[in-house]
Amino acid sequence: MTIKAILFDAYGTLFDVYSVKEKCEQHFQGKGEEISRTWREKQLEYCFLTQILQKYEPFDQLTEKALRASLAIHGTEGSEKECAELMKEYEQLSPFEETEEVLKQLKGKQTFIYSNGTRGMLEPLIENNGFQDLIGALSADEIRQYKPSPASYSYAMEKLGLDKTDILFVSSNQWDIAGASSFGFKTAWINRAREPVSALGFEPANIYSDLKGLLEEK
Amino acid sequence: MTIKAILFDAYGTLFDVYSVKEKCEQHFQGKGEEISRTWREKQLEYCFLTQILQKYEPFDQLTEKALRASLAIHGTEGSEKECAELMKEYEQLSPFEETEEVLKQLKGKQTFIYSNGTRGMLEPLIENNGFQDLIGALSADEIRQYKPSPASYSYAMEKLGLDKTDILFVSSNQWDIAGASSFGFKTAWINRAREPVSALGFEPANIYSDLKGLLEEK
Repeated sequence: MTIKAILFDAYGTLFDVYSVKEKCEQHFQGKGEEISRTWREKQLEYCFLTQILQKYEPFDQLTEKALRASLAIHGTEGSEKECAELMKEYEQLSPFEETEEVLKQLKGKQTFIYSNGTRGMLEPLIENNGFQDLIGALSADEIRQYKPSPASYSYAMEKLGLDKTDILFVSSNQWDIAGASSFGFKTAWINRAREPVSALGFEPANIYSDLKGLLEEK
Repeated sequence: MTIKAILFDAYGTLFDVYSVKEKCEQHFQGKGEEISRTWREKQLEYCFLTQILQKYEPFDQLTEKALRASLAIHGTEGSEKECAELMKEYEQLSPFEETEEVLKQLKGKQTFIYSNGTRGMLEPLIENNGFQDLIGALSADEIRQYKPSPASYSYAMEKLGLDKTDILFVSSNQWDIAGASSFGFKTAWINRAREPVSALGFEPANIYSDLKGLLEEK
C-alpha cells in the first residue's frame, strides 16, 4: 500500500455529534433527541448552502445559527447562556468506542483530522479527549472553502505536501466520501448507520462498519 | 413598484411535489408517504452535492437516482418500468389550489418559471396543466449551474435582459430564497408549511402563506 497519510473527518467519524443530546435534554426536557438531530441537519444544510452561495461563514457561527434554527423548529428558544453552554458541548464530544484504540494502532503513520470545524473548535476537542499525541488537525476554515468542494480537499493535499494517491480519506458522512472520491483521494466510508450506498455515485474504495476496519489497510 | 418580471420556482412553489405520493402508494403500499418525502429530500441533496462537487448532472437523472435512493432507504426497490412510471409523474404534478387563478391575474406581466428541472421536465408539466398561455419556462440546465448558485440567478437575469432590481423572485423553498436574496433579487417567500424564518440570514423581502399574497405586490 502506498498510503502516506490518513485524513479523518471529525464530526460523526471520530466523534459522536449526538453526544450533545444529553445536554439538550437537560435544557429542553423531552425534546433533547429531536433538537440535537435537527441541529446537526441544519448545521450541514447551512454549510452546504453558504458554500453554494459563495458566502462563507465560519463553522462555529453556522453551528450556533443551526442551534437557534433547531430550537425554533421545535417550538422553543434558548437564552444566550443556554446556547453558549450547548455550543461548548462541541468541544467535549465523545469519541466513538474504538476511536482511541484505532488511532493508537495507527501511530507512526501521518494522521490528521480534516474538518469543516474551525481550529478553535477542533483543538479543544482533541485536547479534552487527550488525543494531542495521536492526531493533528487541519481545518477547511483555513481556506474558507467547505468540504465537499474540490478546493477544500485540494487545500488539505497541498498542506500535507503529498499527491492525491498518497492520501486515504476517512469519513462516515456520505457527502464527504462523495467529495473526496470525486476529487481523487482513496476513500474509506465508515458506515456506522448501515445506510445503503449512495445512488449518486462517487463510491468509496472501502466500506467498514467502524474505524477498526482501517487496521486491515495498514 | 418597479418590478418588470416575476420568476417562479416550480417544484413546491407552483406545483406540489408530494402529489407523487399517491402513485408511490399504489406501487409500494403503506410506504407512499415516506418514499415520496425521502425522494424529494434526496433530490435536493444530490442537486446541492453535484453543485458543490462541480459535477453537474441534469435534474431528471438526479431525480431518478434520488428515487432509487429513497426506495433503498425504505427497504425496497423498483423495476425499470415502475421507476419510469413514477418519473413520469413529475410531468403531471398537481398545481396548488390557487396557482392557476394567481397566474391568470398576473397576466400582462412577464412571468417565467425558473427551475432546476430540465426543459424536458418543465414543458410537459406546463402543457399537462394547460398553463402554456400563462407562463414561460427557463431552466438552470441551460447553464448547468443549479440554484441556489449565484451563476444560476445571473443566467436568468441575463436571459430576461433585465437588471436585478427589475425582478421579483418567488419560491416556497428557503434555500432558493436565500440564494435569490443573496444574489440581489427582490424575493417573496411562499411559506406554505409555516416554517420559522431561516436563522442563516438572506431573508425575503416579503412572506406570504400562499401565492395569492403576490397580488398585493401588483
